[in-house]
Amino acid sequence: MHTETFEQPMRAALELAARGPLVDPNPRVGCVLVRDGEVVGRGWHAGAGTPHAEVAALTEAGDRARGATAYVTLEPCAHTGRTGPCVDALTEAGVSRVVYGQSDPNPIARGGGEVLQTRGIDVRGGVLADEAAALNELWTYAVLHEKPWVTWKFAMTVDGRSAAADGTSQWISNELSRADVHDLRRRVGAIVVGTGTALTDDPQLTARSADGAVTGPQPLRVVVGERDLPISARLFDDAAESLQLRTHDLAAVTKELHSRGIRTVLLEGGSTLGAAFCAAGLVDEIVVYLAPLLLGAGSSAVGPLGVETLSDATRWTLHDVTRLADDVRLIYRRK
Amino acid sequence: MHTETFEQPMRAALELAARGPLVDPNPRVGCVLVRDGEVVGRGWHAGAGTPHAEVAALTEAGDRARGATAYVTLEPCAHTGRTGPCVDALTEAGVSRVVYGQSDPNPIARGGGEVLQTRGIDVRGGVLADEAAALNELWTYAVLHEKPWVTWKFAMTVDGRSAAADGTSQWISNELSRADVHDLRRRVGAIVVGTGTALTDDPQLTARSADGAVTGPQPLRVVVGERDLPISARLFDDAAESLQLRTHDLAAVTKELHSRGIRTVLLEGGSTLGAAFCAAGLVDEIVVYLAPLLLGAGSSAVGPLGVETLSDATRWTLHDVTRLADDVRLIYRRK
Repeated sequence: MHTETFEQPMRAALELAARGPLVDPNPRVGCVLVRDGEVVGRGWHAGAGTPHAEVAALTEAGDRARGATAYVTLEPCAHTGRTGPCVDALTEAGVSRVVYGQSDPNPIARGGGEVLQTRGIDVRGGVLADEAAALNELWTYAVLHEKPWVTWKFAMTVDGRSAAADGTSQWISNELSRADVHDLRRRVGAIVVGTGTALTDDPQLTARSADGAVTGPQPLRVVVGERDLPISARLFDDAAESLQLRTHDLAAVTKELHSRGIRTVLLEGGSTLGAAFCAAGLVDEIVVYLAPLLLGAGSSAVGPLGVETLSDATRWTLHDVTRLADDVRLIYRRK
Repeated sequence: MHTETFEQPMRAALELAARGPLVDPNPRVGCVLVRDGEVVGRGWHAGAGTPHAEVAALTEAGDRARGATAYVTLEPCAHTGRTGPCVDALTEAGVSRVVYGQSDPNPIARGGGEVLQTRGIDVRGGVLADEAAALNELWTYAVLHEKPWVTWKFAMTVDGRSAAADGTSQWISNELSRADVHDLRRRVGAIVVGTGTALTDDPQLTARSADGAVTGPQPLRVVVGERDLPISARLFDDAAESLQLRTHDLAAVTKELHSRGIRTVLLEGGSTLGAAFCAAGLVDEIVVYLAPLLLGAGSSAVGPLGVETLSDATRWTLHDVTRLADDVRLIYRRK
């Protein structure tokens, strides 16, 4: 059998995987079962607490799974979580071959391919592996590093200010940039601010549409810091879940969020909190909305980083530049 | 005669015009003389002190100019400068028709088209006018505003710093950005710095190639301020012309430079001088080289502008965004 004949059903599995939720503790996975050239089962993972893609496909196939080839975008798990290991389900169903895309990076769940081989099932990994991995890029990062992918987002003027001398800051960036921030929020598991921002700005921290409506699944709203917030704070409203972490240990914050299944975090705190995460080496990505004005004075968008001399500063990789009318969105990633 | 038949010789004239120097007190102009469908003369202006394009073309044509149509990218001048008015040269040569592109924006030289008409010559203006005007965009601006087009260029980190806390600043931007600055210098009539920058950095302010060689025509090097500079200062070397303007009146600086035939100025001074030009409303364009690092402290790239509140800040138009590896060059223009 040629790679090409593996690729067509794998593409179908990738398309199924993409139906899964972008924001979830679990990766997006698709599965197609083929017997005698006929698709006998299809499944995808619809998010934590629902069946894995393989199980969904096996359920659809029923007895027709026996002797079939399973095409799975991610190496089947050998791990019991909320559901049993997929390798057992595939074995019990009698599939004769398993073709997968990305190898499982999860140290807890990995090794499924080997388990299947020891059980006499023909296994082939790495088919369209890059495309499969791209589906779960940030999840993969989080699982490998045991911390969420952290994006620090801020808006600033061309001269790096987040507010004018008198404190005015609304609005520095334009409507397109602000709408883009709501898109960003939709793509993360949690938004993090400090108690300072929570007390000063009283932000709601929800993903909203242009008309202000809170739409779609919402990220967890996290406040970091020891100061008490009023119960009337908008981020404690019922538009989304909220959590206060009363600590200044930022590594403990990311660890706690990871243990809660948060794989992506958007830092929206002020210049000090963002800089503190950055100085602690916990920021993976910086998203800057650069607005076309100069202030010459006022608050700096980036607070102290502890960098004394130029050669000590981290150089980032420019991942993307996008014009948003007269604003520019710059995305930097850690090298 | 259709516009189309005008356009073909005008395109030839535009191509000739583009052979002229980009940096010059005078505009770039091309001229093609056509008689009985045959090109009988071609000329372009090679810079101040050399013949105007019309005169060059008439010289080539000799007697064959009589009864010809002259295609000129810019309305012929009705003004005696270092050379006599082109309208007289065209009249004396006996051309029967003049077709031109851009109308002359120069309040001193304009009106040539009308003069020719009163002399019984058939005149048609505005043919490929946009393309003709684009050849001399910044010259046109300078002539209309009686001041050079001023570009303020600076390099900075993502957080708007031009030096780290300990003063280190070499190099914030990458090699591509630095090479681009030398290209910028090649395209201006003068580079302006303050005495502070001249004393601190002792810059040479020449347009150099990658190997450090001073190549091609060089801009005038201008130092603004009252402090004395040592005669050994590098910007007084013989690589290019130099000039010190002992004033703090920045409008007087641009006026003086304009009167010297400078149509484009590159501000390379420190954050204070650039901001002072900007606050005085004298900056037309800002070129920012944004380097992929954060400092969190150190000198701001943009000094005081006298802006107290956000709504008082000028909003600029984003003219261009270009990636230079991990640096980004942003060009803003006054709305």
